[in-house]
Amino acid sequence: MTTTTAPVTLHPRTGRADAMLATLLERRRPGHSLEAPFYLSEDIFQADLEHIFRRHWIFVAVAPQLPEPGDFITVDIGADSVLIVRDDDMQLRAFHNVCRHRGSRLCDEHQGSLGNIVCPYHQWTYDLEGKLIHADHMGETFLREQHHLHKVHLRDLEGLIFICLADEPPADFEEVAARMRPYLAPHKLSECKVAAQVEILEQGNWKLTMENNRECYHCVGNHPELTISLYEHGFGAQPGPQNAEGIAQFEQIVRDSHARWEAMGLPSARIEELDTRVTGFRTQRLPLDRAGESQTMNTEVACRKLLADFTDKSLGGLSFWTQPNSWHHFMSDHVVSFSVIPLSAGRTMVRTTWCVHKDAVEGVDYTVENLTAVWNATNDQDRRLVEFSQAGVASSAYQPGPYSPFTEGLVEAFCVWYVDRMRVSLTASR
Amino acid sequence: MTTTTAPVTLHPRTGRADAMLATLLERRRPGHSLEAPFYLSEDIFQADLEHIFRRHWIFVAVAPQLPEPGDFITVDIGADSVLIVRDDDMQLRAFHNVCRHRGSRLCDEHQGSLGNIVCPYHQWTYDLEGKLIHADHMGETFLREQHHLHKVHLRDLEGLIFICLADEPPADFEEVAARMRPYLAPHKLSECKVAAQVEILEQGNWKLTMENNRECYHCVGNHPELTISLYEHGFGAQPGPQNAEGIAQFEQIVRDSHARWEAMGLPSARIEELDTRVTGFRTQRLPLDRAGESQTMNTEVACRKLLADFTDKSLGGLSFWTQPNSWHHFMSDHVVSFSVIPLSAGRTMVRTTWCVHKDAVEGVDYTVENLTAVWNATNDQDRRLVEFSQAGVASSAYQPGPYSPFTEGLVEAFCVWYVDRMRVSLTASR
Amino acid sequence: MTTTTAPVTLHPRTGRADAMLATLLERRRPGHSLEAPFYLSEDIFQADLEHIFRRHWIFVAVAPQLPEPGDFITVDIGADSVLIVRDDDMQLRAFHNVCRHRGSRLCDEHQGSLGNIVCPYHQWTYDLEGKLIHADHMGETFLREQHHLHKVHLRDLEGLIFICLADEPPADFEEVAARMRPYLAPHKLSECKVAAQVEILEQGNWKLTMENNRECYHCVGNHPELTISLYEHGFGAQPGPQNAEGIAQFEQIVRDSHARWEAMGLPSARIEELDTRVTGFRTQRLPLDRAGESQTMNTEVACRKLLADFTDKSLGGLSFWTQPNSWHHFMSDHVVSFSVIPLSAGRTMVRTTWCVHKDAVEGVDYTVENLTAVWNATNDQDRRLVEFSQAGVASSAYQPGPYSPFTEGLVEAFCVWYVDRMRVSLTASR
Repeated sequence: MTTTTAPVTLHPRTGRADAMLATLLERRRPGHSLEAPFYLSEDIFQADLEHIFRRHWIFVAVAPQLPEPGDFITVDIGADSVLIVRDDDMQLRAFHNVCRHRGSRLCDEHQGSLGNIVCPYHQWTYDLEGKLIHADHMGETFLREQHHLHKVHLRDLEGLIFICLADEPPADFEEVAARMRPYLAPHKLSECKVAAQVEILEQGNWKLTMENNRECYHCVGNHPELTISLYEHGFGAQPGPQNAEGIAQFEQIVRDSHARWEAMGLPSARIEELDTRVTGFRTQRLPLDRAGESQTMNTEVACRKLLADFTDKSLGGLSFWTQPNSWHHFMSDHVVSFSVIPLSAGRTMVRTTWCVHKDAVEGVDYTVENLTAVWNATNDQDRRLVEFSQAGVASSAYQPGPYSPFTEGLVEAFCVWYVDRMRVSLTASR
Repeated sequence: MTTTTAPVTLHPRTGRADAMLATLLERRRPGHSLEAPFYLSEDIFQADLEHIFRRHWIFVAVAPQLPEPGDFITVDIGADSVLIVRDDDMQLRAFHNVCRHRGSRLCDEHQGSLGNIVCPYHQWTYDLEGKLIHADHMGETFLREQHHLHKVHLRDLEGLIFICLADEPPADFEEVAARMRPYLAPHKLSECKVAAQVEILEQGNWKLTMENNRECYHCVGNHPELTISLYEHGFGAQPGPQNAEGIAQFEQIVRDSHARWEAMGLPSARIEELDTRVTGFRTQRLPLDRAGESQTMNTEVACRKLLADFTDKSLGGLSFWTQPNSWHHFMSDHVVSFSVIPLSAGRTMVRTTWCVHKDAVEGVDYTVENLTAVWNATNDQDRRLVEFSQAGVASSAYQPGPYSPFTEGLVEAFCVWYVDRMRVSLTASR
Repeated sequence: MTTTTAPVTLHPRTGRADAMLATLLERRRPGHSLEAPFYLSEDIFQADLEHIFRRHWIFVAVAPQLPEPGDFITVDIGADSVLIVRDDDMQLRAFHNVCRHRGSRLCDEHQGSLGNIVCPYHQWTYDLEGKLIHADHMGETFLREQHHLHKVHLRDLEGLIFICLADEPPADFEEVAARMRPYLAPHKLSECKVAAQVEILEQGNWKLTMENNRECYHCVGNHPELTISLYEHGFGAQPGPQNAEGIAQFEQIVRDSHARWEAMGLPSARIEELDTRVTGFRTQRLPLDRAGESQTMNTEVACRKLLADFTDKSLGGLSFWTQPNSWHHFMSDHVVSFSVIPLSAGRTMVRTTWCVHKDAVEGVDYTVENLTAVWNATNDQDRRLVEFSQAGVASSAYQPGPYSPFTEGLVEAFCVWYVDRMRVSLTASR
């Protein structure tokens, strides 16, 4: 995007706000939760948008949301609305959803289908490559080619759609993609359909939502549905005589399962890169408990028609976590994806999408109620915890507390990544 | 109003905000929409209230809202509530709706009738000239004459009520009034009654509402009801072979109509003063299409009883636009007036008032549904466009875009007037 | 509370806001209402929380809300949630309602009963003295004794519960308590039960709520229910020929009543300390009009079972006002207490609690409707006046107006106390 004038901030106090932020980043205490302003300050929220959400790869959608040529969706990141369209040669493209005339939003719907992109205000018309192809009354000297839509970077990683609002997106995405494709490709997400999508609002900061996602210390006390299929020892524990046998058994199950899955061509080994690169991520394929097939109330598959050409229901759960805003679970029968969208310092949207094979028939192969039961319940429980946290960190008595070295290592990895990325970007923007 | 202490701003960052504003005003690019902060910044919104709405003549009501002695209305401009009363000798007066004791609002209703003005809190009592005539328990040394209501300047221009909150209102109002009286007087608005009044909220900045009003480039694509009576070529077009004949025909109709109306004593010639004076305005009387009588769904009069002593239904539409916040259409059968009231950077109220002859009988001479159909539909369509614009200019990708030289000249005139008035007032207030 | 890092403000403009506040405090005009920013500015609201509500004794509850061991309530002061529990030896204790792990709110309910305090997030467990007694997975080096709950100071003054969030609360509370105990003790509030509790929201600044409470100049024009039992001359009047006899009669009734009550062991003399000490207060026992028994619609007792061991229904009304946020009326049959909680610059909560003898039976000895009728009506009338005032002081025309020297002396005392406490605290915090 080319800007013709220097930016003027809406918030002339940015200098002081930046200084405050730099101080807070500098003194962050390792192994402890963040200081309160990171969750409460609207200034820091704006900085989060600028330094994290407008400069990194953000997961926003799955390819099955736009199966056909001309299909579009719109997604919001802060005040930025992005229009994603599939053009006639099946290419996905992303544009700022803003007319180049007087700035009107182009598409107000969340999804739909279109031929050209026609602004509702004065009918300026763009093609699916974003080119302005028609504008009335603009005179002979008007140059249409200077008024094409502003593009947004987009990557389709085996059906997971990431966008980046920066002029120069982080270059390491291609490495991440290369490492992840072998894990993701076998599930053929791009050949799925969306069976259900749910958006919930959490009255809390987006980082509390992410921190909540990055540990299962809270699972046993809060998630009766989710813990049916999750092994108790899958997410860390303080070792001791009382659980030594259980941990050893679990580790043996993991080794046996990995051997079986790798033999089937399903990579399963853990990759741990959450805080070691710009496009932080983590993956692992873990066995599921009891029937061991899927994250459902009875741990059996929710969809009779399996993904891809799978014949084995017991493929465990391949999880993929990305910084700053997503996590995904790929099973034999369905994929469930989560996208976290910050709305304000104290408000966050979590969009959950369940995909099944495109040929699966609702009511025959699966029901939406059964497919979504575990995560709808779990999301609501997590929402409540995030809201308790938001209320608590607003107290004048709140101080950063210690993370468990056994169960909250990935929360720490999230904070380390966040603090590091903010420092780098803040320094670069001076 | 006399203030006994120097003002202390609520917003101690005003210095920086003013500097930001001055920079943005200075670099405004002619012929292009305004930069985003003009629509988004609460600081600039406060500056708009201070420099535009508290220092210029603001259209707020029509005289038929207060037909009888003792009638009152209250109108809000920002946080200022103004009480307008008609006193016993039929004079309209305006006061700040604030008790001089501890500041209580005096009248909480939007309209009504009163004898004296009695504060609900401690019953301090003012007469209709704003004089404090009673206050209990204040002691022998209390000087009632130092506690009269603060007055607000008011002008009644042939039934259109303008107020000015400044100590010294712009002096050129009298010139504007002198030029407009011959146009307005024949319609005798003061002898009308209010047939309907509707307030709508727009989730957008007041300037987007005004810019939307100042062009009809968007009409053909958005206003199917309004364009029944409006000639396509009445509001500008890029000339070319395809429309040369249509434009020529339209211009001939205008010349013929003007000749006929002027002969009837109805001035019709355009006056173009939107950006050439402090109290910017514009007027013209334009023919209406088809039956040509009124801005209705079938273009026939909505009220059988015509205004004043008119006998000819085909008087076209006399339009009167004022900076910063109003427009009006005077026809043979009714008058429709629009007052735009800013509520916050992103929220605006539009109050539309339809007046008919005071002796017209609802259900016999007119129905409210028919009278209001076109503009209720049009207002809602414009609200949607304003809201699309507000959403779009908030995007980080928004840049000011070019106005059409053929159809958006009056939008440019609005921006030129606004930028100029802001600069002058900002400089004067330093 | 020990903080391990220096505080970083959320609002980096504090320096300027403090300077603005200091200027406004310095130039406050005696005998006049406060300037508008005191009611409107969110910066000053934050300062009110910091300097008034976090450094003084705040009335928050009555002991009958927690009759049994393990009973708890939570109360909010600004963003601070405080958990008050009665432990097994009947001691009341107060803690910040914030887990020492990652800051989750501990108790989300307004009241209830508990054994230990268990955090809903990761089940960290504290006993009723606030000691951390259990935390899973924290490792061998984790020191539980460094993670006990942060305590809040609490005093139980004859059943009225005050808390103070400051590290060092104002020391003069003990003197106030010593002076007030003889007045309050005979009513035995601690042996009461809560018959009703009502919270109302007022769209106004908390100081407008307090100022409204501190005068009855507005009563005759606004409170038809309350003025049934209140003598007209009980709260000041400008003396003159028209009311000289009435005032003299009232003063004789007060002298006679005081003589009778003092002889019964009920102190009645006025104490006037609203603006002469840090923990400002005022008390007096005043006769009630007509039947003279209680603040009810018919001025007879609302509860047949009298408080304590009273046998005389005509004990007038012992009123107790405290700075900054409460007032109370103790009668022969019930106690009504008011706690004012600021929510934002323009939003305030008023919690009213009615207590009767714990052995009184609803439907037999009293009805909630009759008990609460006068103050529910009066609270709603006052809410309206506070909202009129908030609307009015936001006007650009508002100027501080003069208080009546006869009827608004306690409003002045409130303002004097407020301004003085703000000045002292602001200076100390530099």
